[in-house]
Order: sequence, then C-alpha cells, then structure tokens
Amino acid sequence: MSNVIDLFFNPKAIAVIGASREEEKPGHVILRNLLLNKEKGVLKSEVYPVNPKAKEILGVKCYPSVKDIPGIVDSAVIVVPARIVPAVMEDCGQKGVKAVTIISAGFSEIGNVELEKKVLEIARKYGIRIIGPNCLGIFDAYTGIDTIFLPYYKVLRDGRKLLSAPRPKPGYISMISQSGALGNAALDYMSGENIGINKFVSYGNKIDVDECDLIEYFSTDGKTRAVIMYLENIKRGRKFISVAEKASLKIPIVALKAGRTKAGAKAAASHTAALAGVDEIYEAAFEKCGVIRAYDMEEFFDFGKALAYQPPAGGDKIAVLTDGGGAGVMAADEIELQGMKVAEFSKTTKEKFKELKEKNVIPYFASTENPVDITGSATTEMYDVSLRLLLEDPQVDGVVLIALHHIPGIPSLEDFVEKLSSTIKSYSKPVTVCVIGGSEAANYIREEFDKRFIPSYPSPERAVRSMRALVKYGLYLKKKGVFEEYLKNWSPIS
Amino acid sequence: MSNVIDLFFNPKAIAVIGASREEEKPGHVILRNLLLNKEKGVLKSEVYPVNPKAKEILGVKCYPSVKDIPGIVDSAVIVVPARIVPAVMEDCGQKGVKAVTIISAGFSEIGNVELEKKVLEIARKYGIRIIGPNCLGIFDAYTGIDTIFLPYYKVLRDGRKLLSAPRPKPGYISMISQSGALGNAALDYMSGENIGINKFVSYGNKIDVDECDLIEYFSTDGKTRAVIMYLENIKRGRKFISVAEKASLKIPIVALKAGRTKAGAKAAASHTAALAGVDEIYEAAFEKCGVIRAYDMEEFFDFGKALAYQPPAGGDKIAVLTDGGGAGVMAADEIELQGMKVAEFSKTTKEKFKELKEKNVIPYFASTENPVDITGSATTEMYDVSLRLLLEDPQVDGVVLIALHHIPGIPSLEDFVEKLSSTIKSYSKPVTVCVIGGSEAANYIREEFDKRFIPSYPSPERAVRSMRALVKYGLYLKKKGVFEEYLKNWSPIS
Repeated sequence: MSNVIDLFFNPKAIAVIGASREEEKPGHVILRNLLLNKEKGVLKSEVYPVNPKAKEILGVKCYPSVKDIPGIVDSAVIVVPARIVPAVMEDCGQKGVKAVTIISAGFSEIGNVELEKKVLEIARKYGIRIIGPNCLGIFDAYTGIDTIFLPYYKVLRDGRKLLSAPRPKPGYISMISQSGALGNAALDYMSGENIGINKFVSYGNKIDVDECDLIEYFSTDGKTRAVIMYLENIKRGRKFISVAEKASLKIPIVALKAGRTKAGAKAAASHTAALAGVDEIYEAAFEKCGVIRAYDMEEFFDFGKALAYQPPAGGDKIAVLTDGGGAGVMAADEIELQGMKVAEFSKTTKEKFKELKEKNVIPYFASTENPVDITGSATTEMYDVSLRLLLEDPQVDGVVLIALHHIPGIPSLEDFVEKLSSTIKSYSKPVTVCVIGGSEAANYIREEFDKRFIPSYPSPERAVRSMRALVKYGLYLKKKGVFEEYLKNWSPIS
Repeated sequence: MSNVIDLFFNPKAIAVIGASREEEKPGHVILRNLLLNKEKGVLKSEVYPVNPKAKEILGVKCYPSVKDIPGIVDSAVIVVPARIVPAVMEDCGQKGVKAVTIISAGFSEIGNVELEKKVLEIARKYGIRIIGPNCLGIFDAYTGIDTIFLPYYKVLRDGRKLLSAPRPKPGYISMISQSGALGNAALDYMSGENIGINKFVSYGNKIDVDECDLIEYFSTDGKTRAVIMYLENIKRGRKFISVAEKASLKIPIVALKAGRTKAGAKAAASHTAALAGVDEIYEAAFEKCGVIRAYDMEEFFDFGKALAYQPPAGGDKIAVLTDGGGAGVMAADEIELQGMKVAEFSKTTKEKFKELKEKNVIPYFASTENPVDITGSATTEMYDVSLRLLLEDPQVDGVVLIALHHIPGIPSLEDFVEKLSSTIKSYSKPVTVCVIGGSEAANYIREEFDKRFIPSYPSPERAVRSMRALVKYGLYLKKKGVFEEYLKNWSPIS
C-alpha cells in the first residue's frame, strides 16, 4: 500500500485533468506550477494536460482524455466540475492511473453524498487511491509535485507584486491538513518562519487516503523527521491508534485537533461535517499512541520544529541559561507551569560554576543557580563554557538557551551561533533557543540557529513549551522502553 | 509631583554626567544618541556633556561639573562609577537638577545597600526624583530623550551592519520594565512588530520613581492609550492599588508579573532581589484595580496593542468572521477556552444572513452560524456586508476577523484593508484581526491594519486572547459604572 501512496509524490507521469487556458483557473495554475518545476529541474515526472477543448496549453500538447496519453500515466490531478469526476475516474481506471488527487469541490461538503460514493466505487473497482476531493492536494518540496492552485501574487495599486502563496523550502517536516485554507496559510507561515517542509497534504473530504495512510507512509519515507497534522476528526479510530503507535516509535507526530470545546466542535461540524467527538477521547488516544498534542497554532509549528530538529529529552529536568534576568524568570515560571522541573544542578556542576566565578571566567555577580544568569556582561565564551557544564550535568535533561543579543559581549553574531551550535551538536541533549526581538540582528540569529537545526523562538515561553514537547516525546519513548535505542540511532541533521 | 516626573521626558536641558570619548562606553552612546536626536530636530532640550577630564566630546563643549553649566539644567543622566554617584548627586542638588536617571550599576543589586541609601538621602535633601540606579533609563519617542546605551549595530564578517537595538516608532503605548535586558528586548520586539511607543522606562532598582509614579503620570500625559509593565515585584502595594484603580478608569493597564511559580519567584529573588510574594495576592490586587494581566510575553504586547487601539467590549459575546473553516474552529475553541461566549446571533441578524444567501450576496454554502464562514469564495464585499451585520447585532460584543488573504476573491489587498478598516471605525465595538502567514502579502495586510489601529495577529488564538483583554477591560469599566461614559469619550486614533 505504501507504494501506491508514494505515486502521489513521486509519479512517473502526472496528468492534469481539467487543465485550462484561463490564467486564474486552478486547472491553469496547477499545470503552470508543474511545468515551472520541470523547467527548474526539480520535477522529474512527465506532465500531461488533459482537456478535450484544447490542442495545447502553455506550449504543451493537450490530450482529450487521459486514455489518449501515450505511455504510462500513474498519477492524475482532477480539476473538472464535480459532476464530471466519475467519468474522468473511469478513464483513469482504464488507463491504469493509480494515484488520483481530486481538487474539485461539490461533493459531500455540500450534500452530494451519492456523487462522492460513486467516485469511491470506481476507485475501488480499479484499485485507485484518492486524495480529496475538495482539497488543495499536494506539495512535495523535493520532487516538485505541486497542486496548490491559489494565486502566487497579489498586485498593489502601484504595480508592486507581493508574494502571497509562497512554498516553504525543502526540509524535514511533513504536514497533513484537514482544512485547505489552513493548509495554505500553514505553507505561508512556514515560509515566513523559515521552516522547511518535506511533504504537504490537504485531503479535504478524505474519502480514501487519510491520516492513517499518510502517517504510515511518512514514517518510512526516509526524510520526514516529524509529522504535524491539523485534524477536525478521525474516522478510523482504531486503525489510527495502531498506525500512530507504530510510527511514533520512529518519528514524532504532532496533532492540532480542533473542535476541542463545545463551540469549536459545533463549528467543525459545519466546516467539514466532522463529528469532532468528545475531546477527552482524542486526548486519551493521542496519549496512548505517543502523539504530541499542540493546543494552538503556534505550538503546532513550534513543536514540529523542535521535534524534527532536536533529540527527545530523557527526563523533565530543565536548565535555563540566560544573559537577561527577566527572561530567565519567565522561563522558570513556564517550566513549572508546563509541569516540568527547574533542574537542581549536581554537586559537580555547582562546584565548577563556583570555580568559574573565582577564576573570573564568568562574572562574580552571575547567578549560577538555575536559571543561570550570566548577565549583561556575558560573552560568547561565557555562554559556551556554561552551556557545556549544563549539557554535561546528568541532572539536566534539556537546556533552554536565552540569548538576548543586544549586549556588547556578543560582538560577532556569527561566532556566537557557530560556537554554541557546534557545542549543542556534540551532546545528545535537546536545546531550544529564545531570541527576543524583530530587529535585523534578532532575525539573523534565529535564522542562523534554525539553519543549523537548533530550534529558536521569539519568546521564552515558546522555547520552554517546545522543550516540553521534547520531554513528552522522550518520556513516551522511555515508557515504551525504546528511548536508549532511539537516541543511539538519532543524529543531528547535517 | 507629576510635573517633576515630566522633567524626565521633557527637560529644558539634560546633562550627561560621565560623558565619554570612548565609542563603546554607555557615556558616549547616550550622548551621541541625544545629539543625533537634536540634530534630527526631534529633541528640543539642551544637551550638556559633563566630564572633568575632557574639554569637548563629539564637538560639544564639556563641563567639569554639572555646576559649571551656565543656565538651567533640570535633568541629568548619570553614567559614572557607583562610588562617585553621591558626589555627583550633591552637585546636581546644588545646581537645582530635579530629575536624575542613574544608569550606573553597583548598588543594592550586588549588596551595596548603604551606597544606595546615601544616594536616596541626597535626593530627598534636594527634592530630586531618581529613576534607577542599575537601569537602561528612558526612551521617549516624541521628545527624543533616549538613554539606552546598547550598541545600535552588530557587524558581520562581511562588513554588513545589522540593526541590533532599534527604537519603536512613535505611538500610544507606554512601557515600564523592571528588567533592563527585557526592556531592551521589548523595544526590539515592538520595532519588529510595528508597535509604536510613547514612553519607555527601565527603572532598575527603583529606589525612588516606581510604577506608581509612572502609572499616575502616563494616565495624564495625554498621549498614552495603554500602559504595559513588566514587573517582578511591587513594593508600595497599597499605593499601587489606589493609583492603578484611578488610572485604569482612564486608560487600560497591562501587567506581566513574573515570578508566578515557586521556581520563578526564586529566580526573581536572585535577579532583582525582589520578594515576588504569593502570586494569588498579585492576582487579586490586579483584579481589584482593573489591571489586565498577561500570562506570557506575547500576550503582554498583544494585549497592549489591542487595548491601545480598540474600544473595550461591552460584554463577552464574540462573533467570528472567516474565509477559512479551520481557523474559524480554532477561534471558536479559544473563545470558549478563554471563558467568553461564541455569540448566538439575534433573529434579525439570522434573517439578514439568510437573505444575503438567497440573493447570492454571499455563497449559498456559506456557514452563517457563528463562526460565520464565507469560505474560499469570499470577496471583499462579502466580508464587508457580513462584518456590518455582526457589528450591528446587539448580541455581539466584539468581532474576531480572520482574513486568510490567499483566496482569489481578495484581488486588492488595499481595497480589503481600507474598506474593512473604515467599517470597523464607524462602530464602537472592538475588532481584532487574524492574518496567518509570513509572506509579503500577509505581512502587508497585518501592517496596514495595524497602521489603522486595527490590531492584527498571526494566529487565531492570539486574536481571540487579545479580544479577551478588551472584554476584561470592558467588564471592569462596567463594574465601576463608567463603561458608557468611557465609550462616549472614546474615539479611534486618527
């Protein structure tokens, strides 16, 4: 089954059924994006437009039906009106297409249940797998498969073109979204935050391929380091638990399950006709199969980044290293509020810190209790020597590193990031970073840490909550008795 | 007393005592910044460097003592070593300086309690008010008083200069910070988020001027629309309650009180020697005097922005208007989680929505229960007509507007922002906006809304939580029986 799912992302040839000459139409945008990716050398698949009324579109020969295409076509994206979809599916079946993404809306979401059933029957008859209908479809940052049909740019009155629907750079997170609009917003958000993506799927009404299939596939695709999924409901509950339980031993899975409250569940019902169900049941299911739950949109991406980039924590004892007292206090508050422990350092660590003070390696007025506050007099070297002590302490399971870059003792932002990143990578303990601010310098440091797969955040609380995700995942792996093995196999993204 | 506090921000003449020729020294940076602001025409005050060892600095005549300066000097910033501060304070007293900001560290924060007492005694003798010591001091975006001494730029290896310590643009929020590093990070953060500032004060050890004095002053300075304060402790508890109680009838006050947990309180004790006290006492005190509490750093600024820009809500019944179902569900969840109500629309509103559907003004498949989801087929006109209905409904106290800009029906971002902003400004109900994403288009819309003082946020939850602050403030004003009057006097920032 995994093999068929792989055809969606990695087909030999993809047909765009409903390809259009009109620039604003989804059938045009999708074809154009695929051809562009082919031109760039990213997409290796053959691309065939299908439209009985056109001879060629964008300079490419157009076929009246998918059946008329010479040679193998293993995948198709369908953008024709809903009522025509069954006929087109028949054609696909006869042609031997195995992976079909149906973008078209107008099915069960507006009451056309029978039409949807018919489509599914045809799929079953021919052994076709379906993503959709009523969805955005797929984006694969590596293979260049891209069915996102929203306009790339918005044009201002003065003619300026603003990028509106960017695609994130290639990375290690795979995302599933039950909401198309949110999915698209997510791609926009991830681009802005410089979070790379592997595969993205918006499956709309999910009449066939669902989160179970996708989790199974992502956990073995060799590139996904974390799965994040926005859900409003899960239909195959038991299957989900068994799939997620197996997958989460290999890679972390984050879920943002909306419809938590009565009001939210009601809203979800009118959105995707999803019976959101009692939230406690989802909570228990996620707990059971090691799925890390995010409780808001920021956590969703923050957790994904932390879990994809850093090793899980072996426990809940967290150290804070800071050059600003206030931010340290906020982090300590949040650690306790999140149910973790502000680590009590080992005797050795305490003695070594004392020594560092006596030798003036760190300021005598630094606070070396946890949070360790090396103050506004801090330097890159002080950060590094302190960070090493913390990472070496067996009573510390993870470090929240707060780097307020404004101080004069960090004259070279490059030295700072390089030195600390290399120190972090030489241990197998998770570190999350907080850099507050929106200045060029603040953005630069966050980007540089992220580039090195040290997850950075603009507030102390977000860095702490992301550490909490790493702790939660680590404790789950421990409960399952596989933590040591997982850590042995874990290596930083190079 | 207010008059003396005003001298800090608006002096006739300010002396920089400890002005230095060495470029990296605070005594140089401060003088340079003041002279630059004078050059730009922002700062109207006279600026006098004081340093017995220099004849001139940066082309400006230097005086051996503040007493040698001809004419009035009503304010001074002191950047000399701690042990010399008493002598310098004596000089200030004799010269008639009334407002002194002491940047210098080395007082009670490292155990030099006696020295600090001595400084305060001298101040009392001469009727001098002190901000500090051990602080960043002041930034006033309108008058150009600026004592922030951190380096403006960080230089990369290739010679690129990255702005590191930006100042926010002039605005309507005044900020108090008990943490210098956090204060500076806050200026960086606000700049990045395009949040304007009126006055900023970092008061360090706060031996004299404290939050009580500042709240009193800000609430009458005519420009402050919201006060935000980062606190680790409050010493004059009763005074605080009486001052804040009075001030919060005029302007909203937001507090981020760190040291909420045992771990945080311990950290605060070693940071500012603050006895953080039992958090419940602070909670009750804030509740009593109408101070809106923020529970993390993002809320702190988010609430400040909402409260400065929008009118308070007359109740807790909130409507959501969206073009993306998923984001609507998330907002509905958060409304309920925040203890507010997802509004049940009035009969009239329901009928009017039905009519809009029948007349195809909005899509027939739109969901017009709350959240109102006008779907990916939405247009600017649909947004506007729906928003009007919601703002007119007496059963709606505030609207969370979710604008996922990606859809083709919003071809002109300018039209969208202008039309909706003008609609919002024609009612007296609060609106918060959510625009998800980091693309040029997403950033553009958020900036344009913010420029028009419609607070916008990158996640549904942050928009909802900010609405919660407006509800909380409104309910406080109602409890005090002044809501109607407040609203009558309230007008949007023009």
